[in-house]
Amino acid sequence: MRYGMLKETNYGFEEAISKINVELQKEGFGILARIDLNEKFKSRLGGIEFKKYTILEACNPKNAHKAILAEENVGLFLPCNIIVYEKGEKTVVVAIRPTIAMEATENKKVFEIAKEIEEALTRVIKRI
Amino acid sequence: MRYGMLKETNYGFEEAISKINVELQKEGFGILARIDLNEKFKSRLGGIEFKKYTILEACNPKNAHKAILAEENVGLFLPCNIIVYEKGEKTVVVAIRPTIAMEATENKKVFEIAKEIEEALTRVIKRI
Repeated sequence: MRYGMLKETNYGFEEAISKINVELQKEGFGILARIDLNEKFKSRLGGIEFKKYTILEACNPKNAHKAILAEENVGLFLPCNIIVYEKGEKTVVVAIRPTIAMEATENKKVFEIAKEIEEALTRVIKRI
Repeated sequence: MRYGMLKETNYGFEEAISKINVELQKEGFGILARIDLNEKFKSRLGGIEFKKYTILEACNPKNAHKAILAEENVGLFLPCNIIVYEKGEKTVVVAIRPTIAMEATENKKVFEIAKEIEEALTRVIKRI
C-alpha cells in the first residue's frame, strides 16, 4: 500500500489506541476526533455488525497552521488520519502518508510540511 | 483548484454551516465531527489569532461501508471534509473531491463509489 504506513500489533483494541495517543503526544500531535465507524454503521445501517474500525484524527497544530498559510484549502486533507481495526487476533494500525494524501495540492511548500509530518508519523508507527 | 469544489457565499459563518448540514442530510450524510481549527490554533499556539476556519467531517455511512469492503484501508481518506472559512465579508465553503482524494488507492471499485459521493457533494455545494 502506497498511501499508508501499516503495523500489525498484538495489543488489544483500546490498548493500541492508548499507545498511539501517547506516541502522538510526544510528536506534538493531539487527537481532535475519534470516529468509531462500526458504531456508526450499526446505528445508521439497520444494526449491521462490523468489526471494530476506528478513525483517529491527529493534528499537529503548528504544522497545520504552516500548511494552511501555504495553501488555504489544505484543510480538506486535515487532520491526519490513523485508523485502527481488528484483523483476526491482531489489531492493525495504519497512518496516512501525508505526502501522498496532499500531493493533489501540487504545492512545494505543502510537500515539505507533509514530509515533516510523515517523518513524525513514521516514528509514531515504529514505536507502537 | 483540482481537489475541491469551492463556493463563496454571503452567509454568516454559522448560517453557512447550518445550510451545509441541512443539504448534507438530504444526501444521506451526517456530520461526524466539527473541528474549529482557529480555536485549536489559539489554545495550542500561544493565543495566536486566525480567521474562522472550520473542518466538517461528513460521512454517508452506506457509501463508507461499501468503500471499506472494497478497500480495507480506505478509512484513511474518510470522512469527507468540507471546510468553511472567512474571506473578507464572504464565507467560503469547499468540499473535497473524493475521486481525487482517494485516487492513491488505485482501486476501481473505490473510484466508482468516490464518484457517487462526489456527485452528491456537488449537489450539496450547488444548493447552498
